[in-house]
Amino acid sequence: MRIARFSIDGNVAFGAVEGDSAPGAEGELVLDIIKGIPFADFELSGTKVPLGKVRLLPPVLPNKVVAIGRNYAEHAAELGNEVPDAPVAFFKPSTSVVGPGDPIAYPSFSQELHHEAELAVVIGRMCREVPRERVKDVILGYTCANDVTARDVQKRENQWARAKGFDSSCPLGPWIETELDPGDLAVECTVNGERRQLGRTSEMVRSVEDLIVHITEAMTLLPGDVVLTGTPAGVGPLNVGDEVAVTIEGIGTLTNKVIKRG
Amino acid sequence: MRIARFSIDGNVAFGAVEGDSAPGAEGELVLDIIKGIPFADFELSGTKVPLGKVRLLPPVLPNKVVAIGRNYAEHAAELGNEVPDAPVAFFKPSTSVVGPGDPIAYPSFSQELHHEAELAVVIGRMCREVPRERVKDVILGYTCANDVTARDVQKRENQWARAKGFDSSCPLGPWIETELDPGDLAVECTVNGERRQLGRTSEMVRSVEDLIVHITEAMTLLPGDVVLTGTPAGVGPLNVGDEVAVTIEGIGTLTNKVIKRG
Repeated sequence: MRIARFSIDGNVAFGAVEGDSAPGAEGELVLDIIKGIPFADFELSGTKVPLGKVRLLPPVLPNKVVAIGRNYAEHAAELGNEVPDAPVAFFKPSTSVVGPGDPIAYPSFSQELHHEAELAVVIGRMCREVPRERVKDVILGYTCANDVTARDVQKRENQWARAKGFDSSCPLGPWIETELDPGDLAVECTVNGERRQLGRTSEMVRSVEDLIVHITEAMTLLPGDVVLTGTPAGVGPLNVGDEVAVTIEGIGTLTNKVIKRG
Repeated sequence: MRIARFSIDGNVAFGAVEGDSAPGAEGELVLDIIKGIPFADFELSGTKVPLGKVRLLPPVLPNKVVAIGRNYAEHAAELGNEVPDAPVAFFKPSTSVVGPGDPIAYPSFSQELHHEAELAVVIGRMCREVPRERVKDVILGYTCANDVTARDVQKRENQWARAKGFDSSCPLGPWIETELDPGDLAVECTVNGERRQLGRTSEMVRSVEDLIVHITEAMTLLPGDVVLTGTPAGVGPLNVGDEVAVTIEGIGTLTNKVIKRG
């Protein structure tokens, strides 16, 4: 099932996306409104609204986003880094999250903004010290993420709170796919329609299971929290006016435009 | 005014702490229950409960904690670090926050837990790109924090999400002091009654104003968000069974006991 979060006439709801999501066919999609929230047992209401009539929101409002750096060997190498002995885990705050179609505001303190297309894991239930064989049970589904990075700031600041935590640095969407094997999916990033990144999740140094075990060894994940799994090679600059799109096989496409900060 | 958050008979409320808070005199303190929340105009109800009858909670439930490393030159030197050109900003997640009297659970993946006594700034209103002269307007008040750190993990993991973000790594309390000049306060840490850290906020490399300007250049702070301002020299080990106390002049004392993870 594909679960979207959306607003219509000032109300916010979750809905199950139904219909054909092939490129160009979005007008055909409808949302069957969910009674309640997708983090517990829920029913579909049967009330349907066309996708074209709503505004899609970030599919979750995470309490925290835990992101992983250098999880594709080829990407680590392109920035001159080794694959680390332990996963590089950092936070992106809730205030960095925006949804599909929302602008990415170019930060005033950077002159080198980069895209990073990533598979995002949406946590479905509160969990801690998750054993490997139970990881599947705590995952609600998967969505697309762009771990937008102020590369120049990342190079000069020892910790990445500003470089990767600024407002609008974490686009998520367009929806959560709940039935998906994350083991070998194509992850692509285009800028103005031109391919910049293309990798497969099978190239990840640590799997989704590895990462959830590693993170929850230390901290509780809450329903709606998000884990970003690292970006494949090909990261590069974003400029004001660019349209950046992250497409993940089996999920869909997350598109955002870079704007000048107002 | 000193604002505490507390639970009594299963209800959670904010209250103004009244009476003498000198050591040993806590039985004399009463809480005047606040109508509403302290992030907007509020009134005192006049309904008073003795502090000894309630359980104090973290004085806020922050959406995010933005912490600053290496902000006291002597502390940077004791860990072999330079004072950085830019403040070292990192996040501690909401799931790391505990209150006064709550246990600090020794993490399973560390053998070297350290205390770090710090002045914590509690944000009072949503803000971004705060000009230096407006910083005072966005601050609700100040409390004590312990930036508990798995030092061995911090040394081997490039980013500090696990080393400084594990559950119970961010004790906050005992309450928020709203009328305080943060410019020159004694910050002390004791372990089992023995002094380990003693510094003054006047030694901070960057002032509270500097830090709020720096952080909000990148990101929105929300009401209840917390900024930790760095720790003075003297950090050192915590062991299971230790009682660690952070005392800040003009605020009070935050005490927590280290326990084995259950």
